[in-house]
Amino acid sequence: MNEFSFIEYLKKKIPKSGRVSVGIGDDAAVMSVDKNKKLVVSTDVIVENVDFKIRALSPEKIGRKTLAVNLSDIAAMGASPAAFVISIGKPPYITTSWLKRFYKGLLALAKQYNIACIGGDFSKAKEFFASITIFGEASPHQIVKRSGARPGDWIAVTGALGGSFLRHHHDFMPRVLEGLFLVKHIKPTAMIDISDGLVQDLSHILKVSGVGAALDLDEIPVSRDARKISRGNEKKALTSALSDGEDFELLFTVSPRQKKMLGKIWKKEFSKVSLKWIGKIEGEKPVIRWLRNEKVVAMPKIFKQGFAHF
Amino acid sequence: MNEFSFIEYLKKKIPKSGRVSVGIGDDAAVMSVDKNKKLVVSTDVIVENVDFKIRALSPEKIGRKTLAVNLSDIAAMGASPAAFVISIGKPPYITTSWLKRFYKGLLALAKQYNIACIGGDFSKAKEFFASITIFGEASPHQIVKRSGARPGDWIAVTGALGGSFLRHHHDFMPRVLEGLFLVKHIKPTAMIDISDGLVQDLSHILKVSGVGAALDLDEIPVSRDARKISRGNEKKALTSALSDGEDFELLFTVSPRQKKMLGKIWKKEFSKVSLKWIGKIEGEKPVIRWLRNEKVVAMPKIFKQGFAHF
Repeated sequence: MNEFSFIEYLKKKIPKSGRVSVGIGDDAAVMSVDKNKKLVVSTDVIVENVDFKIRALSPEKIGRKTLAVNLSDIAAMGASPAAFVISIGKPPYITTSWLKRFYKGLLALAKQYNIACIGGDFSKAKEFFASITIFGEASPHQIVKRSGARPGDWIAVTGALGGSFLRHHHDFMPRVLEGLFLVKHIKPTAMIDISDGLVQDLSHILKVSGVGAALDLDEIPVSRDARKISRGNEKKALTSALSDGEDFELLFTVSPRQKKMLGKIWKKEFSKVSLKWIGKIEGEKPVIRWLRNEKVVAMPKIFKQGFAHF
Repeated sequence: MNEFSFIEYLKKKIPKSGRVSVGIGDDAAVMSVDKNKKLVVSTDVIVENVDFKIRALSPEKIGRKTLAVNLSDIAAMGASPAAFVISIGKPPYITTSWLKRFYKGLLALAKQYNIACIGGDFSKAKEFFASITIFGEASPHQIVKRSGARPGDWIAVTGALGGSFLRHHHDFMPRVLEGLFLVKHIKPTAMIDISDGLVQDLSHILKVSGVGAALDLDEIPVSRDARKISRGNEKKALTSALSDGEDFELLFTVSPRQKKMLGKIWKKEFSKVSLKWIGKIEGEKPVIRWLRNEKVVAMPKIFKQGFAHF
């Protein structure tokens, strides 16, 4: 199968979307953005042997993950995902049947969230890589930036953290519905998705918001995977929850009033996704104070400061 | 310089844009799309040793070209470019000072067209690659697809064709202004940019429009570079003009009435960009008849059928 016949194959596999007036097969795609909404755009690239091993994961799971990390970024803005384009670098040892399975996993997730694949590009390459650019839309008042955290705000996190590499970081569910629910009902003051680890991603919020935080070590949601890899060592499991990357949970801040409101409605909507209040925003310097049993303790050991991409 | 300090460096280098409400440094970028316009999206990836050699071109020129090929796609839709995101694969032998120069070339071209860099992603990689996704906007009636060519239409091409590899395909000017001029004054029935070679790209138009064409070999604009590499062999130079890739000129079709109108106004607006009428659309089968001195001749030899990306 050459490039052109593979694109013909894809055109048949990709569902039509009402908002897309020109899809795959022209110089560019054309779609509509709701006239009252802003365009929200994010891009992520995954590279073989950096983000995954071809032999360790099925092509379906690699395809799914490629899109899932992008969905997580859109979720963290409080936006609704709409469409994406994808560029692929294809080494000679990647067959078109492997690529078909890659697209199968990717398009299954796209279908779940009703988002359209509107274009792409292929190139020969030495190693496999895939770069997705995703488009979402949001009302201007709906968008949550990283920079809005204020002293007195509560800090919340969805799900449980740490040890996602046990599952090769692949089977997480991007928190799109949760993000949309949050902006609809309370609108967080700041939000980010946890890709580099809780401490590093919280630091991003603190730095751009110009605030500090007090974190309650008793409230950190440690995942079953983090416990599993720590073999009963609670301290190690906590470290894992604080610093492992690729959790793809939402980390956000809300006012005390919003916290109260959210406490009442979250469980009804998301019975299977926990919501934990892990601390509060305080001060004006981007530093973290650590608490246990309401007493200040030393900073816990962190494995690594996230993930170096250079 | 690590990834974070490089991103801080970039944030300072990248000009602010009024339409971008969230730029680099959040989970996603946020921009506005004019409420009466459609979003036009294209993506292109370039890979080291496939599209260029690191040692043969300056980083500025590689950066410039990466954006230029995307601008050419937006031009071919008759759209106005607005913003872009870029993903980069960085091998260990690419230094941050090389990357700074890459961005210098890229951002200089972006400035020329007043388009904003609104995001990106970096990854380690074995070889250098860069994937750009570009966003433009266009009124719905302004968009030119490949599929609108009709029997009786004239076929036109901007500039001169062939031999662009002499200049490593890098210094072309994407035909953005020309594309916008065309849709403003006459709106072509079909349009494409020539990236795979005249014959192959015309074939794309013919196939999706469900038409054929008669091409006049006397009218093909053969570039100086095509003549140069053919060392006086006219036949070889013509072959080069018909089949070399990466000319990035506009190939489009217009009705006879539109042709008349365009003949009057083109030269006034673009004194340095030639416009050649190279043939007419005819029939319903995607085949090309070749004419010389108004007589049918055999199909000329074509070097290669464009460029294989798989």
